[in-house]
Amino acid sequence: MTDSEIQILKDAVHTIKDYPKEGILFRDVTGILENTDAFALTIEKLKEKFENKGFTKVVGTEARGFLFGAPLALALGVGFVPVRKPGKLPRETYAQDYELEYGTDTLEIHQDALTADDNVLIVDDLLATGGTIEATTKLIRRVGATTSEAAFIISLPDLGGEKRLADLDLNVTTLIQYEGE
Amino acid sequence: MTDSEIQILKDAVHTIKDYPKEGILFRDVTGILENTDAFALTIEKLKEKFENKGFTKVVGTEARGFLFGAPLALALGVGFVPVRKPGKLPRETYAQDYELEYGTDTLEIHQDALTADDNVLIVDDLLATGGTIEATTKLIRRVGATTSEAAFIISLPDLGGEKRLADLDLNVTTLIQYEGE
Repeated sequence: MTDSEIQILKDAVHTIKDYPKEGILFRDVTGILENTDAFALTIEKLKEKFENKGFTKVVGTEARGFLFGAPLALALGVGFVPVRKPGKLPRETYAQDYELEYGTDTLEIHQDALTADDNVLIVDDLLATGGTIEATTKLIRRVGATTSEAAFIISLPDLGGEKRLADLDLNVTTLIQYEGE
Repeated sequence: MTDSEIQILKDAVHTIKDYPKEGILFRDVTGILENTDAFALTIEKLKEKFENKGFTKVVGTEARGFLFGAPLALALGVGFVPVRKPGKLPRETYAQDYELEYGTDTLEIHQDALTADDNVLIVDDLLATGGTIEATTKLIRRVGATTSEAAFIISLPDLGGEKRLADLDLNVTTLIQYEGE
């Protein structure tokens, strides 16, 4: 990413103070989707990085992961597999719990959506603590597929997600970062 | 759509009996996303139909509307605006209730995501009764934007959605239909 490319994306991200609660600076990625140039640049940069690398599927996690994962899958010429909240996928699923700040939540994947021959690129909008992507990675590997790469539009390195995903043997790509804010 | 194009999509759709409850044949569109050819064909056919028609934004409704709406927006070279469940959009929103089989639900749109100059194409995966798209249409018009076209991958004409959306002055495009089943 050049400085001017980073600026196009950062100009498109809306920053909302005290959302969802006081003291949080929320980085709202919907501004990138609304902006034709920023959206196209995002998918183009990820396509450049990941095309012709042997990926057979993109996996994205409900719901914002769908917004970037599905267009990237199309750009790479591979299929897209959604990871969803419980009860949303109609075929047989595997489920994986993960921890929230208070309590736990669960994600699911279709058991037959991937095979042992699949090499999966994980895509999400924003890397914070990495909890949902850790659960997503476990689901992909439980199905028997390979995954070693995860891509995000935004990362918040202060929250430790890079370390958490490195511990899962995932390489992490992020287009823009917000640190120390 | 030619017969062979229709067959590519219908072969990719999974049909699940008695989901989410007995007597329902559920048409599972995730099979189209998983299948590279079917996914690419879907977006290509919608692009052919809607390019150079003056649309300035695509709107898709959480969560399956994101899966087709975001790639189509990119293909058309316009921005994408999400309509989401309550509490998911961080900026100021408008909200619209709509009726479910039992009870009501609510959808929201960012107030500043569209302007009176926008001409919006609505995209969703499947047209059944049309309730969520009626709510989405009202939200788009409440923001002041114009919308007169809605596109779906699948329609279930027996459920009356076409008539409901026609009553809202929406032209409806569907790629494949399942009737009398």
